[in-house]
Amino acid sequence: MIITVAGAGTWGTALGRALSQKGYEIRIWSRFQEETDRLSAERKHPNLPGVKIPEEIVFTSDIGKAAAGADYLLMVVPSVYTRETIRDFAPYIEDKMVLISAAKGIEKDTLMTLTEVLRDELKAAGKKNQAVALSGPTHAEEVARDLPTLIVCACEDMDCAAGVQQLFDGTCIRPYINPDEKGVQICGALKNVEALAVGIARGLGYGDNTCAAMITRGMEEIRRLGLAMGCREKTFFGLAGIGDLIVTATSQHSRNNRAGYLIGQGKSVEEAVREIGMVVEGMNALPAAVTLCERYGMDMPLINAVRLIVNEHAKPSDVVNELMNRSLKTE
Amino acid sequence: MIITVAGAGTWGTALGRALSQKGYEIRIWSRFQEETDRLSAERKHPNLPGVKIPEEIVFTSDIGKAAAGADYLLMVVPSVYTRETIRDFAPYIEDKMVLISAAKGIEKDTLMTLTEVLRDELKAAGKKNQAVALSGPTHAEEVARDLPTLIVCACEDMDCAAGVQQLFDGTCIRPYINPDEKGVQICGALKNVEALAVGIARGLGYGDNTCAAMITRGMEEIRRLGLAMGCREKTFFGLAGIGDLIVTATSQHSRNNRAGYLIGQGKSVEEAVREIGMVVEGMNALPAAVTLCERYGMDMPLINAVRLIVNEHAKPSDVVNELMNRSLKTE
Repeated sequence: MIITVAGAGTWGTALGRALSQKGYEIRIWSRFQEETDRLSAERKHPNLPGVKIPEEIVFTSDIGKAAAGADYLLMVVPSVYTRETIRDFAPYIEDKMVLISAAKGIEKDTLMTLTEVLRDELKAAGKKNQAVALSGPTHAEEVARDLPTLIVCACEDMDCAAGVQQLFDGTCIRPYINPDEKGVQICGALKNVEALAVGIARGLGYGDNTCAAMITRGMEEIRRLGLAMGCREKTFFGLAGIGDLIVTATSQHSRNNRAGYLIGQGKSVEEAVREIGMVVEGMNALPAAVTLCERYGMDMPLINAVRLIVNEHAKPSDVVNELMNRSLKTE
Repeated sequence: MIITVAGAGTWGTALGRALSQKGYEIRIWSRFQEETDRLSAERKHPNLPGVKIPEEIVFTSDIGKAAAGADYLLMVVPSVYTRETIRDFAPYIEDKMVLISAAKGIEKDTLMTLTEVLRDELKAAGKKNQAVALSGPTHAEEVARDLPTLIVCACEDMDCAAGVQQLFDGTCIRPYINPDEKGVQICGALKNVEALAVGIARGLGYGDNTCAAMITRGMEEIRRLGLAMGCREKTFFGLAGIGDLIVTATSQHSRNNRAGYLIGQGKSVEEAVREIGMVVEGMNALPAAVTLCERYGMDMPLINAVRLIVNEHAKPSDVVNELMNRSLKTE
């Protein structure tokens, strides 16, 4: 089995490493030759300290070389680069190849999920390959250390999802399958915005009680939106729903949580993102989240709080205090 | 308004303190005069460092003095002492008094929730007072520091729940109401057992990914049991459900989480409980949890894992490895 990984960040590297241990041929592609040369020579990733990258993994910035004969293409570039990357890969994609989307986001202008973006570009290139979304509570830092991790493979075509499930079987990643491709990806994108909100509260000095309540109410607003969008309710309470939100909003590994924390502590949005130094997907997902709220006429108080702070430069303490003091309600 | 608090632990003290700030007359009762004398003199609780107890709060070990003329009786003794405590209070309970159960547990032999235990004893004493369950992600350590906290007031009589909601309005505790009295209390009791499981995994060295997955799967097994028991599905995804499980399974303040951690690290169950030094409600709830699994024919893998470790002295690493390696599944 040959697996091409598009994207040499922490998640792409961790996934490639896990699959390499099963004896598969792994090729990790990045657009930047300097990056692939360095990873190939050093066999360690700057953001995965202490993790050794197996010698068998090939790093390349050559798409043709990366894609030739591959059975799977794992898309792990930041969500905003998904469309241009698959467009570049399209000419090299063979019929047998199954695409796996492992990034988390929703395209700002089209409101497409990432598997929809992939299919859209494949269709434009006259191809019919299947695409599976991969999501769940899966920090790269832990997968790279072989810590047991449950994940969800989501595809309307459940046979295809089951194929991806088998692909990971035997690694530290234990996959579940779910036909609700849209719901899984809505969760994956929006939980990053919710995690920003929780991080901001944490940075302001709120405690575990407040944060647990925000996680609960945050998932509730995603659930309401998802139901309006025709998703499956169960998804929101599963690994790719609440499971992923929990880890994103509580783990020190979460960039979104840390970015929020810095904003709560008084840094500007720009300073916070700069200090994280890696992609903060919650910032990328915010415009789509705001548009989805409007389109479906949803009251999403936590997403609105992040919008006020990030887009309108509202004072974080005012916004979070207001959020916690909404009128008494029936749950 | 006069409020009697039965139980002078951290939660009883934190609740009394919060309500005292609204100007209510607060009397905190404990069975142990030595304890009430000390709290009254020192105005600080040994397990709430840095928290000042208002001078206005009266501490007493005299039930008649504690209960006379009170509008509310907040029951905050450890769950296993609920029945004997309400039995002792019964002769002093006036018609207007509403009971609030703020402990978390299920009675081992009867499988009654704590509000059911209260009503059972009141009925035996010829009384008809109403009882409301209070639950949610509410660590006493944070409420005692005025950190915003959302809570659920659950009662089949929603007017009664709304009364308790008003009682807390204006404190750092923001209450929601829910008619699913049983569901709220099933969650409150069983999440402590789930938190033991997560703590054990943490103690064994598992990471945030594993723990988030366990929290998700843990709530799922409680949900399935709850539905079989006739509870309302929404409760399990609300503050008293997943919200409380999140805080219990991730916060340093959680005794259940810490007890599990110590067991995962290699301590015996007895050593772990001794080291915590306060009631570990997950241990108290385990027998009822196991009986409920059997009675409703439920497969509850996490609760079974805790049973194997606590009751059968199985090796924690074997049990958790087995749990994480169950066969591939559809979520």
